Amino acid sequence: MNKPNPFENIRVVLSHTTHPGNIGAAARAMKTMGLRHLYLINPKRFPDPQATAMAAGADDVLNNAVVCSSIDEALQGVAFTVAMTARLRDISLKVQMPREAMPEVLQRAATQPVALLFGTEMSGLTNEEMGKAQLGVNIPSHPDFSSLNIAAAVQVVSYELSVATQSFVPAEQAELPAATHERLEGLYAQLEKVLYDIGFFTTQNPERLMKRLRRLYSRSRLEDEEVNLLRGILTKTTEYNARLKKRYMEEHPDV
Amino acid sequence: MNKPNPFENIRVVLSHTTHPGNIGAAARAMKTMGLRHLYLINPKRFPDPQATAMAAGADDVLNNAVVCSSIDEALQGVAFTVAMTARLRDISLKVQMPREAMPEVLQRAATQPVALLFGTEMSGLTNEEMGKAQLGVNIPSHPDFSSLNIAAAVQVVSYELSVATQSFVPAEQAELPAATHERLEGLYAQLEKVLYDIGFFTTQNPERLMKRLRRLYSRSRLEDEEVNLLRGILTKTTEYNARLKKRYMEEHPDV
Repeated sequence: MNKPNPFENIRVVLSHTTHPGNIGAAARAMKTMGLRHLYLINPKRFPDPQATAMAAGADDVLNNAVVCSSIDEALQGVAFTVAMTARLRDISLKVQMPREAMPEVLQRAATQPVALLFGTEMSGLTNEEMGKAQLGVNIPSHPDFSSLNIAAAVQVVSYELSVATQSFVPAEQAELPAATHERLEGLYAQLEKVLYDIGFFTTQNPERLMKRLRRLYSRSRLEDEEVNLLRGILTKTTEYNARLKKRYMEEHPDV
Repeated sequence: MNKPNPFENIRVVLSHTTHPGNIGAAARAMKTMGLRHLYLINPKRFPDPQATAMAAGADDVLNNAVVCSSIDEALQGVAFTVAMTARLRDISLKVQMPREAMPEVLQRAATQPVALLFGTEMSGLTNEEMGKAQLGVNIPSHPDFSSLNIAAAVQVVSYELSVATQSFVPAEQAELPAATHERLEGLYAQLEKVLYDIGFFTTQNPERLMKRLRRLYSRSRLEDEEVNLLRGILTKTTEYNARLKKRYMEEHPDV
């Protein structure tokens, strides 16, 4: 068996990048550290001569970049999403420094696709985007001036990943496969529907509640089999409700 | 006594930078990590609107940047110079990775000025510039594409410095002060002159020999007192030679 190359399973995802030069500089930063899979969610201008100029030879990374129209498309197949954040407050997510986080990123990337998610130049990631991640990463910076350029942030994280490979040892016993992004989204959608059906949202704010449930399941890093289990319970709940409703309708045909 | 702030003693020196955008991006990178002393040796264009745009708020670092016309001017007062290099080969200098080197940088900066020296975008530092340094630092990168953008390199090194402060403890017993850059240059100039006077260069390539001597003394990280000692020996040599010469001239007035 070939030695696994975790870098092949790592994608850098840039969301709604405004300046094409930053996309090029990010591609160059990735390539200097051996990363090559770039995903772009609705970039403002791409391809663009400025991106190519700033890539300074990392043209292959740019040429192979996958342009997506939504975050769900960019996270297709991904089993572990890391959200980069400049904020430490009001985060409903575990947040680590790059040095702490990269060993786990490598470990997970040894067996399944991993995404490193970067937000826009001006405002970072949206709450919705943060909600898709299992881990937050914050680059420690000076409190008076904490705004790293996005390509500079990609450089620091890629560098930490590269340094982490030096002491990386793949886990002997692979964990059970983690659920992919789309499997989790499927679970959340079904869960929301069932909660709606059983009338749970009449007393609760649906949006806030779903956010809390996402947080809970993010923290537990669901395995694929566990998603099956939870979805099985939800399906049974729906079927049982349907049976009850049917029986009730038969007994009260005039309702 | 105030706790020493090593960052106040650290200057980032960019030599012959071509693109003003890179100067601005480097200033931003420095400021995110709490560094603020920028020195520019013969920048191609500075000040420049592109530098200001890329600084994105680190205007104070740009406005206070010291523009110099030579490396000796930029290293005035510096007692420890670190040269950034993309090469590991043919280096007549000890080379470390940023993570290894930054604790020593902080330790030295706790008491004396330190310079982090970055070369041009295209070709890095010249051999002459490398010869002014006591330590080389190489950012490990992918062998097929090892060219980090200069501002990205500044970001990585500043980041490593910032992380190193977390575990930094100033040495209890300060070492004796290291010789400053200009004191070392004074020693080398005197040494070269004496070697010329005594006829040493008639059998040796002066340039190569001086390079080897610089290397030797760089490695030993001369203290200020040791420079006094060596210069004292050189001065005595010259005086002794002068006396001998004078006596000879007196005894052979017709030579």
